Amino acid sequence: MISGKTRLIAHIGYPTESFKAPLIYNPWFEKNGIDAVVVPMGVRAEDFPGVLASLRKFTNLHGALVTMPHKVTVVGLLDESSTTVKIAGSCNALLLRPDGALVGDMFDGVGFARGLKRKGFAIAGASCLVVGAGGVGSAIAASLAAEGPASISLFDIDATAAAGLAARLREHYPRIAVDLRSSDPAGYDLVVNGTPLGMKPGDPLPLDVTRLSPSTFVGEVVMKQEITPLLQAAKDRGCRYQVGTDMLFEMIPAYLEFFGFGTATPDELRAVARVSY
Amino acid sequence: MISGKTRLIAHIGYPTESFKAPLIYNPWFEKNGIDAVVVPMGVRAEDFPGVLASLRKFTNLHGALVTMPHKVTVVGLLDESSTTVKIAGSCNALLLRPDGALVGDMFDGVGFARGLKRKGFAIAGASCLVVGAGGVGSAIAASLAAEGPASISLFDIDATAAAGLAARLREHYPRIAVDLRSSDPAGYDLVVNGTPLGMKPGDPLPLDVTRLSPSTFVGEVVMKQEITPLLQAAKDRGCRYQVGTDMLFEMIPAYLEFFGFGTATPDELRAVARVSY
Repeated sequence: MISGKTRLIAHIGYPTESFKAPLIYNPWFEKNGIDAVVVPMGVRAEDFPGVLASLRKFTNLHGALVTMPHKVTVVGLLDESSTTVKIAGSCNALLLRPDGALVGDMFDGVGFARGLKRKGFAIAGASCLVVGAGGVGSAIAASLAAEGPASISLFDIDATAAAGLAARLREHYPRIAVDLRSSDPAGYDLVVNGTPLGMKPGDPLPLDVTRLSPSTFVGEVVMKQEITPLLQAAKDRGCRYQVGTDMLFEMIPAYLEFFGFGTATPDELRAVARVSY
Repeated sequence: MISGKTRLIAHIGYPTESFKAPLIYNPWFEKNGIDAVVVPMGVRAEDFPGVLASLRKFTNLHGALVTMPHKVTVVGLLDESSTTVKIAGSCNALLLRPDGALVGDMFDGVGFARGLKRKGFAIAGASCLVVGAGGVGSAIAASLAAEGPASISLFDIDATAAAGLAARLREHYPRIAVDLRSSDPAGYDLVVNGTPLGMKPGDPLPLDVTRLSPSTFVGEVVMKQEITPLLQAAKDRGCRYQVGTDMLFEMIPAYLEFFGFGTATPDELRAVARVSY
């Protein structure tokens, strides 16, 4: 029950119609007696900097979830940002500290990495290929890097994007071997699809699945369907894999911890969520 | 359940801790299947104009409830305002029309007038004394005027405030006899306390209760206690009367109608409200 004492988490993006976070966080807050509420706020790209400046003035604002089209813009408006934000170049979580500082972090990739760990995949020491150096791919690469893999190989059809991400990874994690490669998945411990390929029917596969070894773990970010064509191929070859929505439900505990609201397991969150995938 | 399709009603004021509206509106919205939510937003006086400009950009903002300390400031920031706003010089309800226009109205006084009518008091043709020409007193005078009383007499210890209100009433309602008087309640059909006197223990009475006739209806705006010393005296003299919170619960249906959310009776609202008075 919202009252004048309730802490606000602004959920900022545009359009808002398909927002899922309120349907997961709010039932969880209610079940756990946390006096906070996620409130969708539809804000167009051109209005975002002004609106964010205003939100900072709210005396009951706790923080924000930031989504498209503001994840990159917001980075330039933060007072402090995490290493992951610096590498990914995007940010999806804001905390308004009591001293007024706006602190940003990025949990897309953390969700991915937490999901792998829960499935028993050891990122530390692993050789990883991330296909796609856009927002999500960059965030995943940054979160993998934080777990100490042996190497991170990157591929993007936009070679400049891949090169930029590689440079940022090397700057912040000099001990990890970072290189630019093709999308050939042969020989890696972990292969990640960080591209949107698989969202639309008829999309080409993001990589040559015939080159996947059964010992390779395959991770997916697309969540339009549980088993994407890439995951189906990985499954058929006997690979372990992670579906796109696992990243989502693994990400939310990281947000909860960031906001100071304790934590939860993905299963607890799936149990209260008023949304199905 | 808040989703990305939910329409927002910003409840803007500072401090927010004692806000009651979310505890009345939100259960009513839920019970009636209206996909809207009242969200408290704590905004200090100096931040209000900038924040309001930002809120207008929200693609899912439906309107706002405006409370202290912004009720007067907001009048200068409206695209359109009702006659009541023009007379009262304050505004507590905003509708963001689909064309982007910000339309303001003021329902403090409407709630008072609706309560009188529900109790069978005919404002049309009545002689009225309003003691207190501040925000609430002015709003009540404006809403009484809309119902066609024979006369409205005004008193305030700040004679300039009373004179200003009288001039605005005359401008918008030239057929009503408006004059400046003392607080002597003798001879009126209706006497209204529009001052804060009665909020604190030991406050003097706002008017000389020994001069109240049993045929006079006495209205109160103070809602700290149900029966204020003024109302107790009125009751003792056999007067009919209206308590402060009646104004509140009579006001909400006017807001609901303004927002296009149908209407409700005060009893329906009291039944769902998660707050007691």
